[in-house]
Amino acid sequence: MNAEIITIGDELLIGQTVDTNSAWMGAEFSKMGISIARKTAVQDKANEIKTAISEALSRCNLLLVTGGLGPTKDDITKTTLCEFYGCGYRRDEAVVAHLEALFEARNRKLLDSNIGQADLPELCETLHNRVGTAPGMWFDVNGKVLVSMPGVPSEMMNIMIHEVIPRLKNRFQFPVIVHKTAVTVGIPESLLSKLLEDFESRLPAHIKLAYLPSLNMVKLRLSGRAENSNNLPDEMEKWFNELCHICRKHVLCREDEIPARYMTRKLIEKNLTYTLAESCTGGFIANQMIQEPGVSRIFKGSVICYANEIKISELGVDPQIIETLGAVSEPCAAAMAEGARKKFRTDIALSATGIAGPGGGTTEKKVGLIYIGLSTQNGTQVQKFHLFGNREQFMARACNAAMLMLKDCLEREF
Amino acid sequence: MNAEIITIGDELLIGQTVDTNSAWMGAEFSKMGISIARKTAVQDKANEIKTAISEALSRCNLLLVTGGLGPTKDDITKTTLCEFYGCGYRRDEAVVAHLEALFEARNRKLLDSNIGQADLPELCETLHNRVGTAPGMWFDVNGKVLVSMPGVPSEMMNIMIHEVIPRLKNRFQFPVIVHKTAVTVGIPESLLSKLLEDFESRLPAHIKLAYLPSLNMVKLRLSGRAENSNNLPDEMEKWFNELCHICRKHVLCREDEIPARYMTRKLIEKNLTYTLAESCTGGFIANQMIQEPGVSRIFKGSVICYANEIKISELGVDPQIIETLGAVSEPCAAAMAEGARKKFRTDIALSATGIAGPGGGTTEKKVGLIYIGLSTQNGTQVQKFHLFGNREQFMARACNAAMLMLKDCLEREF
Repeated sequence: MNAEIITIGDELLIGQTVDTNSAWMGAEFSKMGISIARKTAVQDKANEIKTAISEALSRCNLLLVTGGLGPTKDDITKTTLCEFYGCGYRRDEAVVAHLEALFEARNRKLLDSNIGQADLPELCETLHNRVGTAPGMWFDVNGKVLVSMPGVPSEMMNIMIHEVIPRLKNRFQFPVIVHKTAVTVGIPESLLSKLLEDFESRLPAHIKLAYLPSLNMVKLRLSGRAENSNNLPDEMEKWFNELCHICRKHVLCREDEIPARYMTRKLIEKNLTYTLAESCTGGFIANQMIQEPGVSRIFKGSVICYANEIKISELGVDPQIIETLGAVSEPCAAAMAEGARKKFRTDIALSATGIAGPGGGTTEKKVGLIYIGLSTQNGTQVQKFHLFGNREQFMARACNAAMLMLKDCLEREF
Repeated sequence: MNAEIITIGDELLIGQTVDTNSAWMGAEFSKMGISIARKTAVQDKANEIKTAISEALSRCNLLLVTGGLGPTKDDITKTTLCEFYGCGYRRDEAVVAHLEALFEARNRKLLDSNIGQADLPELCETLHNRVGTAPGMWFDVNGKVLVSMPGVPSEMMNIMIHEVIPRLKNRFQFPVIVHKTAVTVGIPESLLSKLLEDFESRLPAHIKLAYLPSLNMVKLRLSGRAENSNNLPDEMEKWFNELCHICRKHVLCREDEIPARYMTRKLIEKNLTYTLAESCTGGFIANQMIQEPGVSRIFKGSVICYANEIKISELGVDPQIIETLGAVSEPCAAAMAEGARKKFRTDIALSATGIAGPGGGTTEKKVGLIYIGLSTQNGTQVQKFHLFGNREQFMARACNAAMLMLKDCLEREF
């Protein structure tokens, strides 16, 4: 099967809306073994829409279309599809009943423009919209399926899950696709690819390795494809294990996860309390970690200690350390972590002190330098990093580096 | 000028990455008076890329391409462009020097795969990448411009701002466009548009008002367009002043700014020190505010007080308050702000206590409830809000609400 997506709407092209719909559809399809070959975003103009549709249908046999189904003048997808397929309208009484119930529940009057949403192209099957007013449409013409859905993400997802996917499973034959993703931290893409050179050259043709880099982490995604289910999962497992073994020093987790959330979940599972003493990262790591629901069981609080006087008064850092070696130093990071762990009486404390930039760097201590400390009752260790990018990138990288230290610590000590 | 965008990468089609690049480019172009006619996302396959490029160039005279420029095997954009234009490679010594400096600064060894990034198609002009290793490429062939940039957002943006936009301004004719943006907080789009109904109806045809809503704020963007520069700036200034006057209670700033950074700059300008006592926002507000360079002059540190015991021990909140009224209450928010201000001896302290969800809500105190406190030597005030969305949205909205309180406080007291 060849599938494509067309998204319709000026707001997508002038950057007012980030298109998350097509990413969601791509991910759902990928899980089912269908890869989307192309995505096209077009303006709310009938000719542009018709051209894009006819081009796409010449390449694929499944076309997903979103957007342009609202009740206002600039929503022209439905009329354009009628023109494209050269058909008239029929009124769908089930949609009328749904609209009446919906408007009554919302205590609003049903306007003509709303009832018009029940008039659908004769050639399509109605896709019921449980959470909104605009129904989806399923065209199956000349061996090609075109599905039209609203652009509101919750409505599109609901129609996809309840109406489109079940129909697709009846209509098409699906290949088997298996993805396995490992998240690596602290090693650049180029070094990883050198490490994996031999591995990659040995991969069979139906298994591909992709490098997906972002802020101090690189996701390694292994994708395998087969026409029927056979032994692909086992085969993938074997290759993925080898991949993870080759990169074992750098793999934070063997799932497609955000490092801070993954590590926080590990802490919750092990019921280990933690705290933080953040200087240059100013709350970033704390905030990333509390994104994981249930964190309140193991996180009581932490200190943001931007100024030296707060490092001294709140965390008990020896003023001598700061005077002689500076706040951006190994002993200071160690004292911050120890001080925080004792103050908050936790199993683990992480600290971060560095120079986020753009100002504040010196010849000896350049922008990007950071010391990350980790303290447990067994002792305190500090690692030194040079991180690059703007302030936000610096913080994201620092957080990922801290998570890798945390992972090593959990494996070693807990 | 007709412009289109092509984004390259399997990760965009299988939904692993949400394409924010093309939204950013669309917004930048829209500010310059160019609308993008179509966006196409294609897989990392040479034939798909070549077909999409040749189709796009048949429709437009400016084509922006992102992605596929990394040093690994799956990055094939550069070789594909060479094939497409039928040209060989040249080594760009300036890129070699940049790579050497970059790797030396990062204390890393330059690999052959990295140096290979300096080999560029003979037909292109190099677009210097100040923040990464893959240079951009500018092709100007047969009257059509094709720009290829890396998919890493920060690198794409840097190349766009410093290399592409200046070249485009030389190469193409642009209309004169003036934008003025005001950021409003805490008032929904529908009420704003009611407030501005008369104003909008009086706007001349060449000046348009756009509502750009996001997380508890709505940006009002006034855009004026003219064929030559004439008196557009003065005219825009007049209309913009009127707009800001009508919405004066809700306008946080009269620039296109992130509220937390704007308010932090105001504090720096007035040399007012501040601190925070964050419960449910877990460091989010602190981290947003320290994104503004120079903040270390006025920010010493703050407390993240997730657990009640920390609110009591670190901020001196009366245990009675928590026992009788709960931690999510007006008196607790007030005590947190006062406690933090005294502990850190600052001019201003902000506090936040609420229920970020998804769990933790009750019939009386629903998910989304938050109290924000603000304390100065003149007294402490608390405001209650009901904020909607997931955890991340809740925090962003809470931060914006706090910034509006801070703005009112600065106008009133300092």
